[in-house]
Amino acid sequence: MASTTVTLRDVARHAGVHPATASRALNNATRSLVNEATAQRVLQVAEELGYRPNPIARGLKTNRSTTVGVLLPDLTNPLFPPIVRGIEDRLAEDGYTAVLANTDNDPTKERLHFEIMRSRQVEGFILATAERDDPLIDDLMSSDAPMVMVNRTVENERAHAVVADDRLGSRLAVDHLVALGHTQIAHIMGPERLSTARNRLEGFLAGMRQHVVDADDDLIEIAGAFTEVEGARAFRRLLDRKAKFTAVYAANDLLALGCFDIMEEKGIGCPDEVSVVGYNDIPFMDKLRPALTTIRVHQYEIGVHAANLLLARLENPHAPPQTLMLKPELIVRDSTAPATVPQPGSSPGTS
Amino acid sequence: MASTTVTLRDVARHAGVHPATASRALNNATRSLVNEATAQRVLQVAEELGYRPNPIARGLKTNRSTTVGVLLPDLTNPLFPPIVRGIEDRLAEDGYTAVLANTDNDPTKERLHFEIMRSRQVEGFILATAERDDPLIDDLMSSDAPMVMVNRTVENERAHAVVADDRLGSRLAVDHLVALGHTQIAHIMGPERLSTARNRLEGFLAGMRQHVVDADDDLIEIAGAFTEVEGARAFRRLLDRKAKFTAVYAANDLLALGCFDIMEEKGIGCPDEVSVVGYNDIPFMDKLRPALTTIRVHQYEIGVHAANLLLARLENPHAPPQTLMLKPELIVRDSTAPATVPQPGSSPGTS
Repeated sequence: MASTTVTLRDVARHAGVHPATASRALNNATRSLVNEATAQRVLQVAEELGYRPNPIARGLKTNRSTTVGVLLPDLTNPLFPPIVRGIEDRLAEDGYTAVLANTDNDPTKERLHFEIMRSRQVEGFILATAERDDPLIDDLMSSDAPMVMVNRTVENERAHAVVADDRLGSRLAVDHLVALGHTQIAHIMGPERLSTARNRLEGFLAGMRQHVVDADDDLIEIAGAFTEVEGARAFRRLLDRKAKFTAVYAANDLLALGCFDIMEEKGIGCPDEVSVVGYNDIPFMDKLRPALTTIRVHQYEIGVHAANLLLARLENPHAPPQTLMLKPELIVRDSTAPATVPQPGSSPGTS
Repeated sequence: MASTTVTLRDVARHAGVHPATASRALNNATRSLVNEATAQRVLQVAEELGYRPNPIARGLKTNRSTTVGVLLPDLTNPLFPPIVRGIEDRLAEDGYTAVLANTDNDPTKERLHFEIMRSRQVEGFILATAERDDPLIDDLMSSDAPMVMVNRTVENERAHAVVADDRLGSRLAVDHLVALGHTQIAHIMGPERLSTARNRLEGFLAGMRQHVVDADDDLIEIAGAFTEVEGARAFRRLLDRKAKFTAVYAANDLLALGCFDIMEEKGIGCPDEVSVVGYNDIPFMDKLRPALTTIRVHQYEIGVHAANLLLARLENPHAPPQTLMLKPELIVRDSTAPATVPQPGSSPGTS
């Protein structure tokens, strides 16, 4: 059999599996989603038949656009490039390409780009722009348009989404700090309208309760955005009202960088006076001094899974809603250390 | 006159300028390219006429795809997100969107993605993947396909490209180091097949000659790729053959990070024993210890100009070839310091 005539469906039929399963098994990034014995059988059949994926042929033989619209807040936020790369790599395997647009978290811009993409007949959408209460997402969900949310999600059981398990991530951060003897732990929360901020706060509160440590409301500050500047402003507010804490859990790495900025300005030592934990493990966090202890999220894999879920929906529009939560992991570096005995009446920056 | 009926051409006609000029004047990112008085006149006319850009209407009223294909090596290299963002922002103003693909510097992948994009009827290409001798670029140039290169270019006077003035960038690095008293300056060059590597080397050699300082061939190492790992390997080779130098000019920031890695491993102090200069000023280089002295390239603006040039070619397919070189600037931080008097017979890492 000539290799050019063997299709994915041929491989699936010979291996006795669904084409979607065969596709996953043949893809390095998604093979782990398939039972190992099944994956081995598919790979063997593919080799025997001389199967080679041919995305161009697949694109040409249909009249579909084979493009997917990807909306994200801002590609220059270091969180997003690996997610987008994961999406593109997985789409490319099935002959799809991504059209990208940046919304800057502006609903008007989001709607505009969405309409432009729809006018270009994209087959589906991956949105990294969801707010907890989001009219565009509501419209998309009620129209049953093929759409998957990535990184952030909405509070709706019909959502298709791939996110990190943010509650678990916060638990890992709190467990680590409590194990080091910290009880006065401040939290710099992200904007309340975002699921990531809300879920990380909830995980923080649950973690504190679990350890029978009171989470002091006075130790929670809400940042206006997930940025270094807003992290600095939130940390300054903590100091200004003489909050007492020996550690800060910042809801993302950029907020943690903002804490570092003010600590340097005020001469507060990290980790000797205040320990700091971030979230995401964006590039270069291991190069900081001190290197940042953080919660690593596997952004590339999140992108791959989001594309996977969308491709599955394109194949089967009635696929049941699914929210996939990937497990984050604690990365311990130099910004956290055992709590020092607090001096009576002293607090960071005022002593 | 109702605002929805006013077009860019109306504004241009009333202001007595070419539509391309009007477009540039109306765009914050490109206004500086237009004579200031002209720009003010265009803005005033636009306001008087009630002009509002309407990319959706523009996209819908034609049968064109209004998409542009963007090929880049790897979106997760921090160099590229701001370039892509600049491209997308400028394209969006004219109602275009970008389809993206990563080639990992693999010519087969590049050709595959190119063919997929062409089959989707993209109207033009922006390529960040050019090698100095590149068959795909040759094909595109001989077919007169609307194509602009960004960041890297080819050795061909018919090229349309937007790049940094890499020779000038190297001159800034050498001038800075020589002013600090360094004469034994090593250079870690990027891969020879890339214009950026070649032009930075040439600027380095010219700068050294200008200062009547011999550039010692023994002080030039070629990295296999523009990565931290290859930077570390190249720096280790310099040490292994006991090259004598008091400063290193690395052809990009990631190569400089590789130098830092080996210096830390070997206990070589930066900047007290060896000064280090990078290139590009990717995010977080100001957060390193020592913060990296580097050559800042305005990547976002390079992206904006590349999209501009492509849009001009789409409007006028016979636009004369143009290579736009943006000026980089020296950013002095903590990784460079005055040269210390070299000890006879000593060299870094062996003393």
